[in-house]
Amino acid sequence: MNNLKTFFAECTRTIDEKLERFVPTEQTEPRKLHRAIRWSLFAGGKRFRPALVLAVGEAFGARKENLLCTAAAIEMIHTYSLVHDDLPAMDDDDLRRGRVTCHRKFDEATAILAGDVLQTLAFQVVSEDKNLSAEIRIRLISELARAAGTPTGMVAGQQLDLQAEGKKISIEDLEKIHHSKTGAIICGAARAGAIISEASEAELETVSKFASKLGLLFQITDDLLDVTQTTAVLGKTAGKDSASAKATYPGFYGVEESGKLARRVCDEACAALQEIDKNTDLLCKLADFVLNRKS
Amino acid sequence: MNNLKTFFAECTRTIDEKLERFVPTEQTEPRKLHRAIRWSLFAGGKRFRPALVLAVGEAFGARKENLLCTAAAIEMIHTYSLVHDDLPAMDDDDLRRGRVTCHRKFDEATAILAGDVLQTLAFQVVSEDKNLSAEIRIRLISELARAAGTPTGMVAGQQLDLQAEGKKISIEDLEKIHHSKTGAIICGAARAGAIISEASEAELETVSKFASKLGLLFQITDDLLDVTQTTAVLGKTAGKDSASAKATYPGFYGVEESGKLARRVCDEACAALQEIDKNTDLLCKLADFVLNRKS
Repeated sequence: MNNLKTFFAECTRTIDEKLERFVPTEQTEPRKLHRAIRWSLFAGGKRFRPALVLAVGEAFGARKENLLCTAAAIEMIHTYSLVHDDLPAMDDDDLRRGRVTCHRKFDEATAILAGDVLQTLAFQVVSEDKNLSAEIRIRLISELARAAGTPTGMVAGQQLDLQAEGKKISIEDLEKIHHSKTGAIICGAARAGAIISEASEAELETVSKFASKLGLLFQITDDLLDVTQTTAVLGKTAGKDSASAKATYPGFYGVEESGKLARRVCDEACAALQEIDKNTDLLCKLADFVLNRKS
Repeated sequence: MNNLKTFFAECTRTIDEKLERFVPTEQTEPRKLHRAIRWSLFAGGKRFRPALVLAVGEAFGARKENLLCTAAAIEMIHTYSLVHDDLPAMDDDDLRRGRVTCHRKFDEATAILAGDVLQTLAFQVVSEDKNLSAEIRIRLISELARAAGTPTGMVAGQQLDLQAEGKKISIEDLEKIHHSKTGAIICGAARAGAIISEASEAELETVSKFASKLGLLFQITDDLLDVTQTTAVLGKTAGKDSASAKATYPGFYGVEESGKLARRVCDEACAALQEIDKNTDLLCKLADFVLNRKS
């Protein structure tokens, strides 16, 4: 697990360096907007999605420099979704990444605009990535847009999630919600790493299989942490799911069974990697990290 | 003016046909999200920005089929900005394009998500436009992102506009706000038409000069209409600028002088077109249309 720690630290350092360059400074007008973006973006997020881009790219032998813009763009999309999800009209949350949320620190209008423009910037960054051919860039933009969009992407999932609040839904519906809300971007990040590496279609298929399990694992552990951890450890409000009557894995299966399910899904994720004739140790460790994460 | 009417009607028909194809049906889950998108997108907007893409493209001899996806994408970006601008945290408006606003018809969360995903879809559509080379597609995405983003694009302008409410600002500041809030996308639309036509850099420069005047003209007449027209004619709440203490051209110069300024800016826009060795009649008529519009 030690080299994973080094990998994450190095990943955070290089991604933050990129983000720093892409986002206008706090002295650039409109200052409030840029302060708000930076408040949410540089709040010590885990950078899990960018790390996934880098880990897949590393497994497939891509040059690191070729992966960084896309990885940073995915973190921007993820952060935009957090800023908007936390708004009063949505999850109405006060705490995120251990900080007061963007709309509480600034105001609602600024938070809406900060989220909006983080999305814009994400696509801009990929479109202007001179390390990649035009063909790869448009493929990445199409993939990321589908992962972030509708009808099977992140925004569709968030809409379904909101609509399901307080309702009794089936486990299939729960999986469908999470598959789009959380899974699509995680899958998009992994696929992006493979696309930049010019992996074959068969390899891309395998990466998708792995990432889809990883996304499910991420959501199960997210649900578990919401029940088992404190707000201080999570850096976001704990116990929110039951407070807002959300359907969750522990809600369906209980904490213990959900833990077992997580272990099984983690094994399936690693098993999927066997089909790839590359060194996928780091990817398997990443899945283990998700299984065992404490926040 | 008659062939301009035909041009607009034909433009609306073809753009709406494209939009219809790009946006998931109302029967696609999540239905509420797709109903909300369609509510705002198919509300009888003027399609001015797509028309500008087509008019510039026509002047430069582009194939119409090559222009349509980008024109539709720009209308999506414009509509997303309207949906978000109308939110309670921003302009808090009840009426848009003659209809109740998205968040009033559905709910705030759905309106936020509908706007979010319209932006995503815009970039997706351009990235997947098989009529254009990969190089042109990424150039368009970069241009549109800069026009829609920050620090000189639409979102930056909206932030500056909100911050200026109730404050005394200079005419230079007012121009700066509008240049980014309204002008950047209008300029982006015109430039997109020229980029698709593979116009030279010098031609692109001239198109920008024309479009920047057109954008200014659009804003002056917008401010004038807010004062001189009724809500019924505008399809959005009239008299809002003074109600929310916004700086406007009539506020600075009075209605009559603003009208004269508009006429002068319109002449300058058409004069800029003289530098282009193409038939730019339609573009000049488009400027005249903006000068004389009643809504």
